[in-house]
Amino acid sequence: ERSRRAGPDGHAGNVGGVARAMKVMGFDDLVLVQPRWANVLRREETIQRASGANDVLANARIVDTLDEALEGMSHLCATAMTPRDFGPPTRTPREHFDGLLGAAEPPQGVAFLFGSERFGMRNEDVYRCHVALSIPTAPDFGSLNLAAAVQLIAYDWRLALGGFAPPAVVAQRPQADAKALSGMLDHLEQALVAVDFLDPTAPKKLMPRLNQLFNRAAPSDEEVHILRGVAKAMLQAAQKAKR
Amino acid sequence: ERSRRAGPDGHAGNVGGVARAMKVMGFDDLVLVQPRWANVLRREETIQRASGANDVLANARIVDTLDEALEGMSHLCATAMTPRDFGPPTRTPREHFDGLLGAAEPPQGVAFLFGSERFGMRNEDVYRCHVALSIPTAPDFGSLNLAAAVQLIAYDWRLALGGFAPPAVVAQRPQADAKALSGMLDHLEQALVAVDFLDPTAPKKLMPRLNQLFNRAAPSDEEVHILRGVAKAMLQAAQKAKR
Repeated sequence: ERSRRAGPDGHAGNVGGVARAMKVMGFDDLVLVQPRWANVLRREETIQRASGANDVLANARIVDTLDEALEGMSHLCATAMTPRDFGPPTRTPREHFDGLLGAAEPPQGVAFLFGSERFGMRNEDVYRCHVALSIPTAPDFGSLNLAAAVQLIAYDWRLALGGFAPPAVVAQRPQADAKALSGMLDHLEQALVAVDFLDPTAPKKLMPRLNQLFNRAAPSDEEVHILRGVAKAMLQAAQKAKR
Repeated sequence: ERSRRAGPDGHAGNVGGVARAMKVMGFDDLVLVQPRWANVLRREETIQRASGANDVLANARIVDTLDEALEGMSHLCATAMTPRDFGPPTRTPREHFDGLLGAAEPPQGVAFLFGSERFGMRNEDVYRCHVALSIPTAPDFGSLNLAAAVQLIAYDWRLALGGFAPPAVVAQRPQADAKALSGMLDHLEQALVAVDFLDPTAPKKLMPRLNQLFNRAAPSDEEVHILRGVAKAMLQAAQKAKR
């Protein structure tokens, strides 16, 4: 799929931050419409904030009109905090992406349009879009930084497209079965008696409590092994103490 | 619920960016552990990047130890890019939050621990956590800015907690019913014949094509009214032309 970000904002730090936000979610098609500085892609602040997303900057295009930026794109998503009369429907990103990708004919080129940090999107640019994506924010504080808005949209879009696996998933922890757990608890009970913590003539509810605690902890076989080692050491210490 | 962010990083821009990222998702309990600068909450760069999230900065606490930061918290989420041996299970935020809130006993105080931008989290701090949240990023570029990571986690956590409504949802667009659409198409057909675009003796598939197009567009009653106005104007123009 093609996913493109286009925006008229040329603030160098923002452009770098946007490049980084895109790359971290696996996107790289950045187009700037009339940025404030012609050399914005090569400015020091841009490169610093991009923090290694240099290929996104190198691939980025600078164009004069939104039409050039949107060449080949068939579905346009405005990202506007303020809904417009007569504008496209306002939806949250997650809701819209689910509908879009679940549709009978998913669009072939999806563009995300971002306005400038200070002025947002122009009405005439919003009007031509298919949807106005609105990130749900606190009612009294909707001030999202441009790079943060790109980061959230890129994240939701990437997850909607199937996502990435987390960097390295730790192998599933194998849980000890009920028999192993109850054997460990018996062992532990003997040890608790031996160290004079548990009085076998008045046990109260200590063992059921410990059973519940270990049920919630759902230990692995290895952990059961460790706990039995503890019980064994307790028993040995008690024996030595009685000599 | 209580949600808290704690981290040892003191870079002023980051602290401001984190405050903004939290506030925009409706969170305000920020704790800094041994920040680089004692006055980080009042530094110019912090306030600038906070961009109005001044109450989060004003409420923020600075403490010496992670223990102080975590007072009253019962469920600790590390945010570590690199899974640790013997550490807590690694999960994506969305997956973990669904499980956490769907559990029989949801935790009462949830803390999110962030490491420093440069050094990440210390092993010993990760070990005490219940989970290591890992934001799924591009396999070859996992370099998330600290404020961006806070933004994504805060977004997912807020959505998991029920979310905010989008700023102002535009009223549901009322779709015209099939009868209104077919009446409009009849009107349009007459008009197309009148302006000599449609040859009624060899209509080809023009009207079924237009019907399909308008089905996809799913016009409202108001839009059907506009389209009938167009048809009417076409008919009038054609009549004048024949005089």
